[in-house]
Amino acid sequence: MSNVNRVWRLRKRPVGELTNDVLSFEEEPIPTINDGQLLVRLNYLSLDPTNRIWMSDMDQYMPPVELNAPMRGLICGTVTESKHEGFAAGDIVSGLGVWADYQIGDPAMLNKLGDTGPLPVVDAFGTFALVGPTAYFGLLDIGKPQEGETVVVSGAAGAVGSIVGQIAKIKGCRAVGIAGSEEKCTWITKDLGFDAAINYKTEDVAEALKKNCPNGIDVYFDNVGGNILDACLKQMNLRGRIPTCGLISGYNETEPVPGPYNYAMMLMQRLRIEGFIVTDFAPRFPEAAAELGKWMAEGKIKVRQDVYDGLENALEHLKKLFTGENKGKLIIRVEDTK
Amino acid sequence: MSNVNRVWRLRKRPVGELTNDVLSFEEEPIPTINDGQLLVRLNYLSLDPTNRIWMSDMDQYMPPVELNAPMRGLICGTVTESKHEGFAAGDIVSGLGVWADYQIGDPAMLNKLGDTGPLPVVDAFGTFALVGPTAYFGLLDIGKPQEGETVVVSGAAGAVGSIVGQIAKIKGCRAVGIAGSEEKCTWITKDLGFDAAINYKTEDVAEALKKNCPNGIDVYFDNVGGNILDACLKQMNLRGRIPTCGLISGYNETEPVPGPYNYAMMLMQRLRIEGFIVTDFAPRFPEAAAELGKWMAEGKIKVRQDVYDGLENALEHLKKLFTGENKGKLIIRVEDTK
Repeated sequence: MSNVNRVWRLRKRPVGELTNDVLSFEEEPIPTINDGQLLVRLNYLSLDPTNRIWMSDMDQYMPPVELNAPMRGLICGTVTESKHEGFAAGDIVSGLGVWADYQIGDPAMLNKLGDTGPLPVVDAFGTFALVGPTAYFGLLDIGKPQEGETVVVSGAAGAVGSIVGQIAKIKGCRAVGIAGSEEKCTWITKDLGFDAAINYKTEDVAEALKKNCPNGIDVYFDNVGGNILDACLKQMNLRGRIPTCGLISGYNETEPVPGPYNYAMMLMQRLRIEGFIVTDFAPRFPEAAAELGKWMAEGKIKVRQDVYDGLENALEHLKKLFTGENKGKLIIRVEDTK
Repeated sequence: MSNVNRVWRLRKRPVGELTNDVLSFEEEPIPTINDGQLLVRLNYLSLDPTNRIWMSDMDQYMPPVELNAPMRGLICGTVTESKHEGFAAGDIVSGLGVWADYQIGDPAMLNKLGDTGPLPVVDAFGTFALVGPTAYFGLLDIGKPQEGETVVVSGAAGAVGSIVGQIAKIKGCRAVGIAGSEEKCTWITKDLGFDAAINYKTEDVAEALKKNCPNGIDVYFDNVGGNILDACLKQMNLRGRIPTCGLISGYNETEPVPGPYNYAMMLMQRLRIEGFIVTDFAPRFPEAAAELGKWMAEGKIKVRQDVYDGLENALEHLKKLFTGENKGKLIIRVEDTK
């Protein structure tokens, strides 16, 4: 193999919308590993809203990426050289890594992907590595929906939100999704079985929620924060739950973002608002993968992935997450593995 | 007895600060009761921040007071006539009633006060009827403080907040109070045993929290919302809890009040924000009264009451809750009973 490695490095903290000068794409030598380390060849790179958080120096749940360091990402790769007894060359691994063709893998941050059965590796990685467990634990452990309740999810056509609504249906709830285009709304109702969809770009969300949630909202799974959170707060039932997975509407803002204007509803309706980060549930990921895998095999959960080729295109595609252009889980394919 | 009854009636919804034209003080005939009802003579009227909520038509946890209806309040009174088998003339009752010398008591909303032991009725009413259970259940059931954790409470010299801090100390926590005068700060640290106090009118609350909470905040008991909530959010530890009892800083606002600017900390630190209304715990009030009574007898909990004479002065004294003028539980004494 040639000794050329391609690496995305963080050059400045983003201010407002993502711009091209935030990251640079460099050619560098392939790193060499020490005892206890792995050399990993990147197969797939997951693009996620949280990438934007890691680039910034806002208060966050793990240290931000340091300036000039390789950009952090959720990766799936193949071990090409191992100096760690738990891994061997040829192992397919997923977990936290960087945006680079070759990288030193931290065994503490990577898991072997294991047998994916009939699922291609890219699908298993896309669903089980992050977004599936996020939907599964956020909805079931934090939201605790009961049969017959109404679950509303924002970012409903997104990678997490689309699974949230489908799990809500499996659990006997009414599922209402909020998304940003007619195509997305049609997809979640016609293909995924949501009971109703609201297009926040063309509809008055508060009015549409009233119409589509005749019994109010028991669980609002929040991916976005902002105005949509405010509209949902107005319709929450007594002792409703708001598991909070993301606040993407605020990530590109340059001014301090006010919290919800209807925050007082939390008091009046005795709501529980609770943030979670899926990695807190890491020891239970196999449980989520088993359940989700079963539901997918039964056709009860469908996923959609937007797979794009070329590590060099990662930044362009990442921007889509913040404009609503993507239609499924965003994955960059560097080299297929199965 | 004369047939003259004095009644405060709600005449308009308050906008901004409470003004004298919001309520009117009328002379009316004493009402007569039907089967199943009680006639109650008012002894004590509790003045509470939630009175301001009931006057308004904001979204709230029970229906607002109707315009021109008698003002709702937490009362302690004596049954003067009973047409309900559960009550007899002479019973001392407390619960929801109205701001009037004589009133028709709703048996579903009133409880017999029972034997108050060595405590004068006014003290038992002031502590056990509402603020004591509010502090007790909000801190222990919603906040779930663990020994060695740090509990911060706003409105710390108020009727609820002062008890919250003292229960936190009993449970082995560090107790830090936020209050609005040097006198209040001295009282809660010197007399009540709080570990530290912050004067929000003269100190930078965020800086003072950093100094006084060297291990961060595990439980923030929120009585006020607004800027103080924002400052606390910045210092919350992983999986911190924010039991929310009140948002008094916003009650007199005329414009929509933004939620906390640091709302995203709820996600980053996986916080749980939960509103509660003490009446949800009504079946367990005897538990709170027993525990609080024991702690008061042991000198571990001290309470301070501001008792003012004259129903005609109720509105003037209510205003103090929103300017921070009061120093303890505000009670209007109409006629002593013991």
